[in-house]
Amino acid sequence: MADLRELAEFGRYESGVNRRALTPEDIAARAWLENRMRQAGLDARIDGVGSVIGTTPGATRYIVVGSHTDTVPKGGWLDGAMGVIFGLEVARAFVESGTGGDIGIQVMSFNDEEGRFAGLMGSSVFCSLKTLEEVIGIRADDNTTLASALEDAGYAGQPVAEIDPATHIAYLEPHIEQGPLLESRKKKIGIVTEIVGAERCRIRFLGQADHAGTTPMAMRRDAAGALYDYAVRFAGFCREHGGDNTVWNLGNVGLEPGAYNVVTPESTLYIEYRDGSPEILRRIREIIPVLATEICDLHDVEYELDDGVRAQPAAMNETLINCIEAAADKCDAPSLRMPSGAGHDAMLCAPIIPTGMFFVPSIDGRSHDIAEDTKEDDIIIGLRVLSTVISGLVADGSPLINQTH
Amino acid sequence: MADLRELAEFGRYESGVNRRALTPEDIAARAWLENRMRQAGLDARIDGVGSVIGTTPGATRYIVVGSHTDTVPKGGWLDGAMGVIFGLEVARAFVESGTGGDIGIQVMSFNDEEGRFAGLMGSSVFCSLKTLEEVIGIRADDNTTLASALEDAGYAGQPVAEIDPATHIAYLEPHIEQGPLLESRKKKIGIVTEIVGAERCRIRFLGQADHAGTTPMAMRRDAAGALYDYAVRFAGFCREHGGDNTVWNLGNVGLEPGAYNVVTPESTLYIEYRDGSPEILRRIREIIPVLATEICDLHDVEYELDDGVRAQPAAMNETLINCIEAAADKCDAPSLRMPSGAGHDAMLCAPIIPTGMFFVPSIDGRSHDIAEDTKEDDIIIGLRVLSTVISGLVADGSPLINQTH
Repeated sequence: MADLRELAEFGRYESGVNRRALTPEDIAARAWLENRMRQAGLDARIDGVGSVIGTTPGATRYIVVGSHTDTVPKGGWLDGAMGVIFGLEVARAFVESGTGGDIGIQVMSFNDEEGRFAGLMGSSVFCSLKTLEEVIGIRADDNTTLASALEDAGYAGQPVAEIDPATHIAYLEPHIEQGPLLESRKKKIGIVTEIVGAERCRIRFLGQADHAGTTPMAMRRDAAGALYDYAVRFAGFCREHGGDNTVWNLGNVGLEPGAYNVVTPESTLYIEYRDGSPEILRRIREIIPVLATEICDLHDVEYELDDGVRAQPAAMNETLINCIEAAADKCDAPSLRMPSGAGHDAMLCAPIIPTGMFFVPSIDGRSHDIAEDTKEDDIIIGLRVLSTVISGLVADGSPLINQTH
Repeated sequence: MADLRELAEFGRYESGVNRRALTPEDIAARAWLENRMRQAGLDARIDGVGSVIGTTPGATRYIVVGSHTDTVPKGGWLDGAMGVIFGLEVARAFVESGTGGDIGIQVMSFNDEEGRFAGLMGSSVFCSLKTLEEVIGIRADDNTTLASALEDAGYAGQPVAEIDPATHIAYLEPHIEQGPLLESRKKKIGIVTEIVGAERCRIRFLGQADHAGTTPMAMRRDAAGALYDYAVRFAGFCREHGGDNTVWNLGNVGLEPGAYNVVTPESTLYIEYRDGSPEILRRIREIIPVLATEICDLHDVEYELDDGVRAQPAAMNETLINCIEAAADKCDAPSLRMPSGAGHDAMLCAPIIPTGMFFVPSIDGRSHDIAEDTKEDDIIIGLRVLSTVISGLVADGSPLINQTH
C-alpha cells in the first residue's frame, strides 16, 4: 500500500493521477519503479520502448506479473499501477523468502497502455505484434513523436524486451474491474474468462433536405427517422440474438443540418459492440448491412457503411482461470467468472503464453476518472489471491510448463 | 413578369436573391417598389416599420393584396415578391380600367417577414400584435437594432399602417407553395384552407455515464437508447393518432459526450410538429410527457421537457376559399385545397379580417434556396386567378362586407 501511495504522487491530480506515458511525471515514476525493484533485490531495467522490467535473480523461466503505470489524462490512482505494484510486492516476498528454483518472477510495467502514442504500445512490441520501427514514428496529440520522447527519456537504444514462450511460462495481470459487477454482486475477485472483442463501425443515411412544414410525411426521405428506427432495431437484434454478456453502444449521432424545421438529409450513427465470442461478433457484424437495407426501403434513403477498428476476443488460459478460482476460495474471497469488457495488455499475451487476469472491485464501478478507487481491504485481498496463485504455480513446478494452450 | 424580373435584380445572387430586410439591396428594392406603385397611379408610401403600401385612389374600403419582398439569405426570386407584384399588377389594371366605386385595392409589402430582426415583423405591427416600441429594440445577428436600421433607411418617424376591419375588407396573399404537393398532383393552384399551427419542444434524457465495454446492459442508464426509443414511439404516435396532414420532424439531437465507448449520460431531442387542428396539436402536446415517462421507466433515466414556440393554426376565410376555387375553375386551373405547412403574413391577418391565400407550384418543391423557381405559365395562371377573385369581389359589392368570420 505504501508503494502504491508513493507511486500515486507522481502526477497526482486531486484524488487521481495525470501521468500519461513519457511525460516528465511518468518518466520520474519509471525511475522510481526501477529503483524500488532494485531495492527489492530484482534485476531491473527500462527497455527501448520504456517498459520497466524487474526480474528475480537465479531462475531460467519466469511467471510474468504486471500491467502498466501510465494513466489516461486525469485518471485513477490504481488502474494499471495496482497490477505492477502487486508484481513488485510478490517478487519482493519471493526474494525475501529465499525461494529458489528454476521458476522466478518477472515484474512488468508495459509502457503506454493508455495510448498517448498508441494503445497497448509496450505490450504490442513485447509480443512482437509491432516492431520498434513501426511505432517510433507515431505522434502524440501534442505532435511529439514516440522516437523523440524515448530519446528525451534516455530509453532509446536500450534493448527491447520480447516475449519468449520458452522462458515466459505465464502472464498474470491483476487489475481493477472498471465496472460495477463485482460490487453489485458482492464479490471480491472477478476471474476473467476472456477479454471481449470489440468492433466499431459508422453508418451514414443519405436522404433529402426538405421543409419540415410543407413536405408531406409520405414524400420525405428523412435520414433522421431512418437513424432512430435503425438504432432501435439494432438494439433489438443484439438483445435477441446476442449472448448474455454482449454489450453494445450507440453513443454518438450526427445530423445535418440539425434544425427543428429541416427534414434531415444526412445522419450518422456510431456503433460499437463487444463480446467474447467471435461467432456472436460475426452475427452482429453481418446483420448491420441487412438492417440498413430494410431501413433504407422503409425510409427511401440510402446508406454508407464505414468499418472501424476490430479487436479480436482473447480467451484466458483455463488452467490459470482454475488456479485463480482455487486461490480465491483459499483466501475466502467470493469470486465470479466474468469477461473483461475493457482491453488490457493481457489480450496481446494471451495468444502466445498462458495468460490469466483477475479484477478487484471498483467503488461505484468508476474508472478512467479521478473518482476511481478500491477499498484498501479489497486491494489486499487481491494481492493475497495473486500470491496464492503464484505460490501454487511455483510449488507445483507449474502445471503450465509444456501445456498447449 | 418584367416587374418580377426587375425586382429580382436587387440583391441578385446567382439564380436567386440575397435581400434580407433593411439591407442596402432591400432598401433600394423598396424605393423601386414605391416608385412603381406611383407609376401605376397608386398612392404609395413606406411606413414607419418599412412596409410599402400602395393604394388605388378614390375608394373608402380596400381589398389588401400582398406578401413581402425581403428574402432569407440566398433565397429564391419569387417567394413573397410574387404576391406583392401580383398586387401591383392587379392594382395597375384596376386603375387603368377606370374601375371606380367604393372598394379599392391596397398593395402591401410587409417588412421583414423572414425575420432578419423578427419573423412576421411588419404584419405583427400592422395587425397590432406588437407595438413599434416592442420591436425597434430587436437586434439582427450582426447586432444592428431595428431602430437604427429604420433610421438609416429614412423610414423612422413615418406613420405606421394599421389594420382596420372597417376599411380592410379582406387580405389576399398569393405565394409559391414551398413544397412538392401541387407539382406531384399536377395541380396549378393550391387553395389554402388553413395555415397550420407549429409547436416545438426539447426533451432531455438524463442517465449515467459508464464504460461501454464493462457495464452490463442491464445496469446501464443509457440516455441515447432512451432517445432512440422515444423518437420511434413519438413518430408512431403521430402516424397513428395525427391527422392526414399532420407533419413532425425530429431534426436535431445532442448526445453528451458523444463517444463510441461511453454510455451516454445526457441526450436531447428536438421535436417539431404541425397541424391545422388545435385538437390534434393538443393531442400530440399531451402525449409528449406520457411517452417520456414510459421511456424513463424502460431505460431507468429521467427527463426534462422545455417548451418552445407555439404558433396557433389560422383558418382561412371560407367565403374566400370558395371564391378562389371558383376563380381557379373559371381560369381552367386545376386546384386543390391544402393546408399551408409554412407560416405567412396571412396567419396574422386571418383572425382579424377575412383572409385568403393560394399557392402556385414550386418546381421540385424547392424554396428558401436559390434553386427556387416556378414556371412562367404557372405564375401567369396564378395572376389570372387573383384578378378573377378580385373582379368577382368588386363586382359583387363584396360578399365579405359585414360578414362575421
